[in-house]
Amino acid sequence: MTKHTVNFQPIGRRVEIEHGATLLEAAQTGGVGLSAVCGGAGVCETCRVYVREGAVSPPNLIEEAGLDEDELAEGLRLACQAEVLGDVRVEVPASSLSTPQRTQIEGEALDVPVEPAVTTYTVKLEPATQEDLRSDWRRLCDALAAHGLDAPLATCTPVLSDLSPRLRAQGWEVSAAVRAGAAGCEVVRIGAPGDAPLGFAVDIGTTKLAGYLVNLQTGETLGMLGRMNPQIAYGEDVMARISYAVQSPGHAKTLQTALVDALNEMIAELCAAAGAGPSHVVDMVAVANTAMHHLFAGLPVEQLGTAPYVAAASDALNLRAAELGIEIAPGAYVYLPPNIAGFVGADHVSMLLASNIPAMEGVVVGLDIGTNTEVTLNANGKLLSCSTASGPAFEGAHIHDGMRAAEGAIEVFRLIDGEPQYQTIDNTPPVGICGSGILDMVASLRDAEILSAAGAMQPDGHLRIANSDHGPAFLVAPARETGHGADIKLTRSDVSEIQLAKSAMRAGVKILLDEAGLTERDIDAFIVAGAFGTYISVESAVRIGMFPPLPRDRYRQIGNAAGMGARQCLVSVKERARGETIARRVRYLELTNDSRFTDRFSQAVLLEPEPWF
Amino acid sequence: MTKHTVNFQPIGRRVEIEHGATLLEAAQTGGVGLSAVCGGAGVCETCRVYVREGAVSPPNLIEEAGLDEDELAEGLRLACQAEVLGDVRVEVPASSLSTPQRTQIEGEALDVPVEPAVTTYTVKLEPATQEDLRSDWRRLCDALAAHGLDAPLATCTPVLSDLSPRLRAQGWEVSAAVRAGAAGCEVVRIGAPGDAPLGFAVDIGTTKLAGYLVNLQTGETLGMLGRMNPQIAYGEDVMARISYAVQSPGHAKTLQTALVDALNEMIAELCAAAGAGPSHVVDMVAVANTAMHHLFAGLPVEQLGTAPYVAAASDALNLRAAELGIEIAPGAYVYLPPNIAGFVGADHVSMLLASNIPAMEGVVVGLDIGTNTEVTLNANGKLLSCSTASGPAFEGAHIHDGMRAAEGAIEVFRLIDGEPQYQTIDNTPPVGICGSGILDMVASLRDAEILSAAGAMQPDGHLRIANSDHGPAFLVAPARETGHGADIKLTRSDVSEIQLAKSAMRAGVKILLDEAGLTERDIDAFIVAGAFGTYISVESAVRIGMFPPLPRDRYRQIGNAAGMGARQCLVSVKERARGETIARRVRYLELTNDSRFTDRFSQAVLLEPEPWF
Repeated sequence: MTKHTVNFQPIGRRVEIEHGATLLEAAQTGGVGLSAVCGGAGVCETCRVYVREGAVSPPNLIEEAGLDEDELAEGLRLACQAEVLGDVRVEVPASSLSTPQRTQIEGEALDVPVEPAVTTYTVKLEPATQEDLRSDWRRLCDALAAHGLDAPLATCTPVLSDLSPRLRAQGWEVSAAVRAGAAGCEVVRIGAPGDAPLGFAVDIGTTKLAGYLVNLQTGETLGMLGRMNPQIAYGEDVMARISYAVQSPGHAKTLQTALVDALNEMIAELCAAAGAGPSHVVDMVAVANTAMHHLFAGLPVEQLGTAPYVAAASDALNLRAAELGIEIAPGAYVYLPPNIAGFVGADHVSMLLASNIPAMEGVVVGLDIGTNTEVTLNANGKLLSCSTASGPAFEGAHIHDGMRAAEGAIEVFRLIDGEPQYQTIDNTPPVGICGSGILDMVASLRDAEILSAAGAMQPDGHLRIANSDHGPAFLVAPARETGHGADIKLTRSDVSEIQLAKSAMRAGVKILLDEAGLTERDIDAFIVAGAFGTYISVESAVRIGMFPPLPRDRYRQIGNAAGMGARQCLVSVKERARGETIARRVRYLELTNDSRFTDRFSQAVLLEPEPWF
Repeated sequence: MTKHTVNFQPIGRRVEIEHGATLLEAAQTGGVGLSAVCGGAGVCETCRVYVREGAVSPPNLIEEAGLDEDELAEGLRLACQAEVLGDVRVEVPASSLSTPQRTQIEGEALDVPVEPAVTTYTVKLEPATQEDLRSDWRRLCDALAAHGLDAPLATCTPVLSDLSPRLRAQGWEVSAAVRAGAAGCEVVRIGAPGDAPLGFAVDIGTTKLAGYLVNLQTGETLGMLGRMNPQIAYGEDVMARISYAVQSPGHAKTLQTALVDALNEMIAELCAAAGAGPSHVVDMVAVANTAMHHLFAGLPVEQLGTAPYVAAASDALNLRAAELGIEIAPGAYVYLPPNIAGFVGADHVSMLLASNIPAMEGVVVGLDIGTNTEVTLNANGKLLSCSTASGPAFEGAHIHDGMRAAEGAIEVFRLIDGEPQYQTIDNTPPVGICGSGILDMVASLRDAEILSAAGAMQPDGHLRIANSDHGPAFLVAPARETGHGADIKLTRSDVSEIQLAKSAMRAGVKILLDEAGLTERDIDAFIVAGAFGTYISVESAVRIGMFPPLPRDRYRQIGNAAGMGARQCLVSVKERARGETIARRVRYLELTNDSRFTDRFSQAVLLEPEPWF
C-alpha cells in the first residue's frame, strides 16, 4: 500500500502513514498530541489544523458545517475528516494541541533583523614584549579600535580578570563580546576565539517563566523552556506576593532569590542543551508585569500595593546581571523594557511589540488575559491601555474543582448530544478543571440552557445537576472516571467567578472604546495573547459575552507574545527603542477611580453576547 | 611673669609659656613631639622649625653655625635656641616631628577648585496621585531635569530601592547625589534633605594605607587616618604578595578581602568622627602602585610578576564600589587613576599631580622612595619615568636590627663628639632601627671615617666597633639602653644593603638624565615624596651619594603626595583629566633590559657624593 509522509509543524514531527488515513490517525500514530474531544466523530471541532502543502481529500459535509468559508479558504481542516492523499505539511495551531507538545511558551514572532546590543569580535593580539609594554587591556582596546569600536571602552573587573590569563593561555587570541550602549562600548566577556554570543530572553509571569536561548549572531532560537515561577510558594497572585514581600524586610529578598535561582537553572539547562555554558550568555532581556519586574530587580513593591499604585521605576532599565545574581557572562547586562503603570507592565509592552498592535491600521484590541488582564486599544493610531482585576478564576483559583493547566486538568469540554465530553492535559484521568475547560463548560451549559443568562443553574436542566454544599452543581466527571476518585463538579459559585472575571475584562475593553468614542462594531482585529488566551475557545468566550461577537477571522490568538517581544528586544536594539516609544505613546487609564467602571462591569455580568453592542 | 602663646602648626596646638622660654621647652610643655636628639644642646639640629609670626630672640651663634643664610632668611630656627618674646606662630616641618604627631599621611596639597564628580541636589516632589501616576523614579528625574541634569539619568537598583520608601517617609523630599560621567548622569545615592556629599580618598601603599574623608561640596578635609595594610601578613613586599596571590586561586581574593575590610573600617571610623555614616560617602578615589591596584580591583597579577611585567589594565578605571566590596553609598564608584607601567603605578601619577612636577619649568626630578623607587624626570617639559628595585632596606628589612617606622625605632641618629645620639619614635627605649635612622648612621659613620667609601667598617675606627657573626659591627645601643634587652648594631652587611638601595635609586635618576642628555648639575628642583622620603635627612642622603650634592633649597620633601593627589582627584574631575594626561605624557623606561643600568649602578655603590657629577 502506498505510504505518505505527514510533516507536522511547528512541532517538527514527520509521520509515515498509509494512503487514505486521516490526519488525526497520522497524528495519533506519530504521538502528536492533537486535541480530539469527540474521538474523531467530527462533532467537537477541536482537531482543527491548517494544511499548508500537499494533497488531502476535499472538505466533506461535516467540515463544511463546522468551518466557515474563510477558514476553509485558509486551508483550515478537521484532522479527523481530512484524508492523506500524498505527502503533506500540516500546521497545528497551539489551540489544537494537547500537552505535552504545548509548551505555553511559543508564540507568533515578528521577524526582525538581527541587530543585537552585544557583538563578538575575535582578535589576535601581538604578545607583550620589553619593547611593547602596553597593558593587556590597552592592547585589546587598540585591536578593537581597528574594528571601528570607539575608545575608551569600559568594562568591569571580572571581565578584565579573564583577559590576562586567557591571552596567555590562548596564544594571544581571544573573543571579546562588546556591548554598544548609549554610554559607549563596553566589553562584557572575554572568551575563546570564535565563541558565539548567546542571549537569554525571559517572560517572568506571576505563574510561569518562559525562557528562550538565542544565538545573537544569527538570531536563531536555540531552545526554549517553561517552568513554574517558584515565588508561587509565597503567594499565588500579584497582590498576595506584594503582601508577603512587605511583611518583613527579608521577604522581598527571598522572593528575588527564588526567582533568580530558577532563572539560573533555566539558563544552565538551555545552555547545556546547546552545548555551551552560562558564561556564553552575553545579553539578557526580561519582561514581567510591574510587580514581578520590581521583585526581580530588587525594587520596593509596597507602594504598588496601595493607591495610587505607583511603580518605583517605569523607565527601561539596564542592570548588571551580576548585581541581580544572574550567572551569565561577567559583564553582561539585563535589559528590562519600560513599564506603563503599576498594573500594566513591561510584559504588556513586550506583547504590544510582538503583536505589532501599535503599528496596525484601524481599530485593534489587544488582550493579555491573566489575574490582571491588560487591555490596549489602538484606535486609529491612538493607544489606550488599562488593567482590569479579572481575578484568578482562569488560573483555577476560587473554583471548586479548579486547577492550573497541568497534567490531568480538563482543558476542553463539550456537551455532545447532551453528554459531557472532555479532554485532559496529557490525556490522563481528570483531577480538576483549568481555565479553558471552565470557560467551555459555562458556554456549553449556557448554550444548552442549563444556565440562565444570569448564571443560575436550572435544577432540572440536566440529569447531572444535583444540590451540593455550594448550591446546585453540574457533575462534570463522576468519581469512577477521575484520577483522584472524587467527583469533579462545576458549581453555581464557579459560574459566578467566571461572570466576575469576564465582566471585568469586558468592562475594560468597553471603557477604552468609550474613551475613544467607538463601539465593538468598529473593532477590526481582536488579538488575544498569553497562554490561557491561546488555548481557550474563542467561540465559548463569545458565547458568554467575554469577547464581542465579531466575525471569527477578526480574532487572533498569538500565544506568549510577551516572550516573543522579549526575544525581539534581545535580538534587536531597534526593537528596544520601538518598545520604549510604544510605552511613551500609550495613555494609561486608571479604572479604580473611573466612575464608568461600575456601570460597565454590572452590564457585562449576563452570560450573553448581546450587551456588547 | 609674662606669658605668651606659642601656636604650633600644622598640628594646631597652642601652648602657654613664660617669657624667655625656648620654643623647644614650649613644645615639650605642650606635648608637641619635636625632635631633639641632643636634648637641647644645639648640636643635633633636629629641632628645626619655622617662625612664621611673632617675636623670638635673634639667631645666636649656635644657630648661625648650624643653619645657612637662606634658611635663616626663611625664618628657620633651632627650637632649642630660639626664646619666646611674644605670641608666636611656629610651623613644624614633618621632618622635625617625632611620632605620634607624624601621621605619615599628611602632605603638601595643591589648592584645586572644587569640581567634584558627584553633586547633591535636594528636591521636593509633588506626591503621586490618581491624576499623576508617574513612577517615583520618573518623578525624581523630572525634578532633577529642572536643575539642568540631562535625561535619561541612570542608576542601579540599590539606589532605586531607597527612593520609594524615602519619598514617603520624608514627605516627598529627598537629596539625590548625582554623578556626572562621560556616559551621562547617574544617581548614586538617595538621602535625607540637605545630606552633605562626602568623599573618600585613599593611598593604598604596600605597607601603609592613608585615607582622607572630604566634604565634596566645600572641598574641606574632614579627617585623615593611617593604618597598616593588612596584606602585610601575606608578604612584606610587592613581589612576595604577587607570589602569594598566584599560589592558589583563593589567595588573591584573600588579599582583596583583607584590604577591603580595612578600608571599610577606615571609612566607618572617619565617618563616625565626622558625625556621618559610610552611606554618605558618594565618591571614592584610590591610588596604589600597580600591584596593589590590581589586587584591590581584583585584576590578575601573575603577569606582573614575570617579564615583561605587564599590567592587566593601565587605563583609568571607574568601578562600582559595591562590586569591590566597598561599603559606601549604594551606587557610588571608585575612581582609579591610570597606571604608567607594571612598576610605575597610579600612586606615582597621583604624586606627579600633587607635586605639580609635570607643570614645572626647567629640570625637575621627582622621587617616590619605597621598595621600588619611582623616578620621574621633567626635562624642560619632557616627562621620563622609571622604576628601580631599591629594595626593602629602608623599610627595615634585610637589616640586622632593622624595623619599620614604629614605636621604639631609632629614626634619627648623630655622632656628637664621637658619641652616638639617637631619637626613637614615641621616645621609648629603642628596639630597632628604621630607614631614616639607618641612613643617618651610614652617613654619620662615613663622615667620621669609621666607614670607608667602599662601605668597609674600620675595625679600629671607633670603640664601639666589634666583630660579630656578621663581620664588624657598630654598637648603636647597648643592651642596657634598649627596650628588648639586646644590643642594637649596625653591621657591615647592613651598610651593603644601603649601598645597594642607594645605588639603584641613583642609577635610576642618572639614566633618566642620560636619556635627556642632562647631568645632575642641570637639576633645578629635586622633589622627594612618600613617608620615608619626608622623614629622612637630606644631608645624610647627600653625604652618602644617594641624592646629588645640590644646594639644600633645591630639595623639597612633600610628604604623602600620592595621598594628596588622590584627594585632588576626589575633589575635582579636572584633576582626574589632568592625571590621565600626565600618564599619557610620561615615557616609561624599562631598566631591566637597559644596558646602561649595570654601569650606572656599580658607579653609584661608593659612599661618596662625588660620582654624581
